Amino acid sequence: MSEKPKAVILISGGLDSATTLAIAQEQGYECYALSMDYGQRHRVELKAAHWVAESFGVTEHKIINVGLDKLGGSALTDNTISVPEKLAEGIPTTYVPARNTIFLSLALGWAEIIGARDLFIGVTAVDYSGYPDCREIFIHAFENVANLGTKAGVGGCTFQIHTPLVKLSKADIIRQGVRLGVDYGLTVSCYQADDEGRACGLCDSCRFRMQGFQEAGVTDPTRYRK
Amino acid sequence: MSEKPKAVILISGGLDSATTLAIAQEQGYECYALSMDYGQRHRVELKAAHWVAESFGVTEHKIINVGLDKLGGSALTDNTISVPEKLAEGIPTTYVPARNTIFLSLALGWAEIIGARDLFIGVTAVDYSGYPDCREIFIHAFENVANLGTKAGVGGCTFQIHTPLVKLSKADIIRQGVRLGVDYGLTVSCYQADDEGRACGLCDSCRFRMQGFQEAGVTDPTRYRK
Repeated sequence: MSEKPKAVILISGGLDSATTLAIAQEQGYECYALSMDYGQRHRVELKAAHWVAESFGVTEHKIINVGLDKLGGSALTDNTISVPEKLAEGIPTTYVPARNTIFLSLALGWAEIIGARDLFIGVTAVDYSGYPDCREIFIHAFENVANLGTKAGVGGCTFQIHTPLVKLSKADIIRQGVRLGVDYGLTVSCYQADDEGRACGLCDSCRFRMQGFQEAGVTDPTRYRK
Repeated sequence: MSEKPKAVILISGGLDSATTLAIAQEQGYECYALSMDYGQRHRVELKAAHWVAESFGVTEHKIINVGLDKLGGSALTDNTISVPEKLAEGIPTTYVPARNTIFLSLALGWAEIIGARDLFIGVTAVDYSGYPDCREIFIHAFENVANLGTKAGVGGCTFQIHTPLVKLSKADIIRQGVRLGVDYGLTVSCYQADDEGRACGLCDSCRFRMQGFQEAGVTDPTRYRK
């Protein structure tokens, strides 16, 4: 039987969360990967999450349904809002209202059930500073909620939310991942990837990713459509 | 067009949340009711939520899927854990890990989308002091998360989570609801109600409810199976 502490790692199928999973595993955690099916337009990211979870041999990978598409309000879940092809000022239309709060809540629920006290989320405040729920101040506020709002927390356990990427640039993340053996060819970052996981090369997420590989001096293993 | 401020009210189909909705309406809010389909064993509560929302003429009632049943860990979502028929010490097995954190997160997401700053949740710390996520200290921690983790919050809006029942006994809640015209015959509190919403009369929730009507001196409109 494993003597390792358990951790729940939120994985989306993207580059950041794959690296986060690699870091959790390197730190000695028994890894439970959690993904959300929230009606995202880029459905292939759930396939990618599965590929990533499998490649790391996680103890369990769950995909939980959350009907965020019924709420609308984001280019990522609502077909009537277009995904921008250039970086805009401020918070992008790809912002999903309260997304990380919702995802962390579900990760917390699962953590409590399996007896994990550690949660990992691949937020980064450097490249995507437009998202309010990627900031450390938000993460700390959520830790407080976790410790006050659960049986485990009230019972004296302390939940910790690990954000190993929060201060890293995309290039730094890629360097770390390469060192830890992440196969980035399995990951999908593109907001409008096709069913095989091939990227558009045009959206915000693709641009950041390309630039990251360039800056890291690593050959980009991303499969592009053209 | 309505000039009223909008509010999102979490409704379960039970007595407490129906009263909360009545209070929000009396306070002058345009009401958006939100319910969760989280694989609860007492499926009829979603029907009851619909009856309640309809009886108040809310602007919109959404039922969002959240796959909590896939996580397990509670008598309310897991068929292998039995619902207790007597009050036990401590936190009951009907506790659903992180439930209110999850529900408030989704309510927050919807609130942000429709431009509401007010959320209502019918938690009560008196009768169910066993649930950590029914306490005011938890609610305040969540408000902090809401204000730090959303575009609206960062933009200067302040979310407020209203808990009008938090200090009321079941009898007080019923007295308020009767004054506001709540039809408690529509509500279902029982953890194992049948498909018509008829209650068992034996579980924790039924006992509290019966006792509440007795103490309030109000005829109990609950439909019991026997």
